[in-house]
Amino acid sequence: MEITFADRCKDLKPSAIRELFKKISVEGAITFSAGSPSPLSFPVEEFATIAADIFKNDSTNALQYSVTEGYPKLRKQISERLKERFYVGADYDDLIITTGGQQAIDLTAKALCNEGDVVICENPSFIGALNAFRAYNLKLVGVDMDDDGINVEKLEKALKENKNVKLIYLIPTFQNPTGITMPLKKRKAVLELAQKYNVFILEDDPYVELRFTGVPEPEIKSLDTDGRVIYCGSFSKILSAGMRLGYLCAHKDIVNKAIVLKQVCDTHTNILSQMLASRFMEEYNLDAHIKQIKDLYRSRCSLMLYCINQCFPDCVKHTIPEGGMFIWATLPEGYDAAEFAKKAMEHKIAIVSGATFLADPNQKSNAFRLNFSTPSDEDIVEGIKRLGDLLKEELK
Amino acid sequence: MEITFADRCKDLKPSAIRELFKKISVEGAITFSAGSPSPLSFPVEEFATIAADIFKNDSTNALQYSVTEGYPKLRKQISERLKERFYVGADYDDLIITTGGQQAIDLTAKALCNEGDVVICENPSFIGALNAFRAYNLKLVGVDMDDDGINVEKLEKALKENKNVKLIYLIPTFQNPTGITMPLKKRKAVLELAQKYNVFILEDDPYVELRFTGVPEPEIKSLDTDGRVIYCGSFSKILSAGMRLGYLCAHKDIVNKAIVLKQVCDTHTNILSQMLASRFMEEYNLDAHIKQIKDLYRSRCSLMLYCINQCFPDCVKHTIPEGGMFIWATLPEGYDAAEFAKKAMEHKIAIVSGATFLADPNQKSNAFRLNFSTPSDEDIVEGIKRLGDLLKEELK
Repeated sequence: MEITFADRCKDLKPSAIRELFKKISVEGAITFSAGSPSPLSFPVEEFATIAADIFKNDSTNALQYSVTEGYPKLRKQISERLKERFYVGADYDDLIITTGGQQAIDLTAKALCNEGDVVICENPSFIGALNAFRAYNLKLVGVDMDDDGINVEKLEKALKENKNVKLIYLIPTFQNPTGITMPLKKRKAVLELAQKYNVFILEDDPYVELRFTGVPEPEIKSLDTDGRVIYCGSFSKILSAGMRLGYLCAHKDIVNKAIVLKQVCDTHTNILSQMLASRFMEEYNLDAHIKQIKDLYRSRCSLMLYCINQCFPDCVKHTIPEGGMFIWATLPEGYDAAEFAKKAMEHKIAIVSGATFLADPNQKSNAFRLNFSTPSDEDIVEGIKRLGDLLKEELK
Repeated sequence: MEITFADRCKDLKPSAIRELFKKISVEGAITFSAGSPSPLSFPVEEFATIAADIFKNDSTNALQYSVTEGYPKLRKQISERLKERFYVGADYDDLIITTGGQQAIDLTAKALCNEGDVVICENPSFIGALNAFRAYNLKLVGVDMDDDGINVEKLEKALKENKNVKLIYLIPTFQNPTGITMPLKKRKAVLELAQKYNVFILEDDPYVELRFTGVPEPEIKSLDTDGRVIYCGSFSKILSAGMRLGYLCAHKDIVNKAIVLKQVCDTHTNILSQMLASRFMEEYNLDAHIKQIKDLYRSRCSLMLYCINQCFPDCVKHTIPEGGMFIWATLPEGYDAAEFAKKAMEHKIAIVSGATFLADPNQKSNAFRLNFSTPSDEDIVEGIKRLGDLLKEELK
């Protein structure tokens, strides 16, 4: 029979990155294209010990249906950590565990946005979020970024010019894909605009724990006074990405709606993983574990920056992230990074061209994303050298 | 700030059953209200052994991001099992692993149905599916059931009278909540109607492996000739419900769209669980494991039926399931089972009243659902006796 898809998704394409991911694993390229954490960040032995104990002493809880809002103890642990470390979570807030941070974004869109509503996002931004919004037939309006995050004047212009803006989606800390962190002053300005135009902010914060240099900026959610900021986080970058564990902290009315919606999406999040995370937090030192990851990423990021400075032509600009997993490199104006990424792939270097991350997928970009969390030191040295040679050839 | 939810979910309520679930765990009642498998069905020791080996020898695969469509080996194993045992899966079909059977339903609705489209369902039907459809603002049309499943004349009437019918949602085998299995003749008739009116069938088949008596009926999907039947299944009733492992087998164009949509819902399904299921199927005897579950359920169902016959007044009718987890009891016309369920709860017996499962939640029902997979033999004997006493009092 002829298959007609719903309007909301008939033009939706798979994420170019995940498609690239499949291609690379076949071709054995040096990979700067990942959005993955280093496998060295997985607490394998600890998980093995905890899992053995769970199967021995608490197997029914780990394998039976559970409550939609999440394993009670883990909810409490996350809430406490968010409050203590990041001042995130007010009296009017609550928290739901989600199947990865991705589901927190999906549930927010599903709960709040009617088809045709507008979501304002940083341009570029995280493709997984953009596609989640597209899958509800939302209109994306991308706002250009300065060196320190979204351009506030352009943001206000977008808020003024667009009707039915429902939320502003932001990754204020170690942004994906740029690695940029928004300073406090700008965070306040953005929150004031959200108040002035009465829209929500969805603060996506999966990298916050990965600051390896510089001084932390307060989360926008910590400045929230009226339930306007919806906050989502993830265990993907600090314990395991494959476990699919994230959370949404927001006004309790929004969390209650998210619970009802999650119930019909996947009933609840895999409970064994929730128990593994909870017990890891209880029995081991999460901060010490995260410190190891940060040490690793600091070292890899430094090495990549060093190699870039050695090998890339001066006209290629790049960000200097204080944490997270990404560096953003920008070619001189007029160059198409998609073409360059294609050429790099021919030389077995995988990078993601900037257009992938734009609100308007038909726009071109002269920038590309480099990931430093997954490649080895040898691959960073060799890969950046090869990219540098290609760039010199391209830009000569 | 004032929170306005999207139209699709502003009136959506949590599943009454899951709310009841929370209440019961507090109050220590005898529980015939569950939709859960027996914890005895979980292969705890086998999982412990496999998990230990995965953490030792394959930890990166188990904890890193993975592909959206599912762990390749498990996809293959499920596809083969579906084909060999149930003749499910044609050349034009493909399969995606989902975060429980619930997500397979959610993705089908998201992929195919525009807001306002009509979904026809059995009346009563599985509340989780009905709410998944409601969460896309779909219109539910319930079609009454006969003793052998959906009434075909009324189904045709519903197909004729409603515009924009997109799919017929059915649980043809050991239906939830009635326990009824549709005979082949009716399956064929339903498929012919779907062809005649050019709509999809979503065949939800989580209980198929749990036939403990009688002769199997072919899955509707096995009769499919043109990609009209979308089939979903689950590991929840045969390995673990808390793992959240299900799958969708459908025309490959639909599966491809489901993959794109799943990518933005939760990226992929928890990969450790997929590996546990895959290795269990490879290294242990799934059929022997399922046989143990069936033996248990046969025995519990028989006991419950025996007790019902002993204790319930004759005017209370009930189904005699050949598998699955549920018996459906019907009071004489005019009685409100919701009132009776409330009274039963006062006597610490939890049952789910029929209205919960109706397409129109404001309609009343004189029936209620009894689950036999979770209560112990002692609880079955004691609980059914108490229910019988209450019924006699109520109906005298």
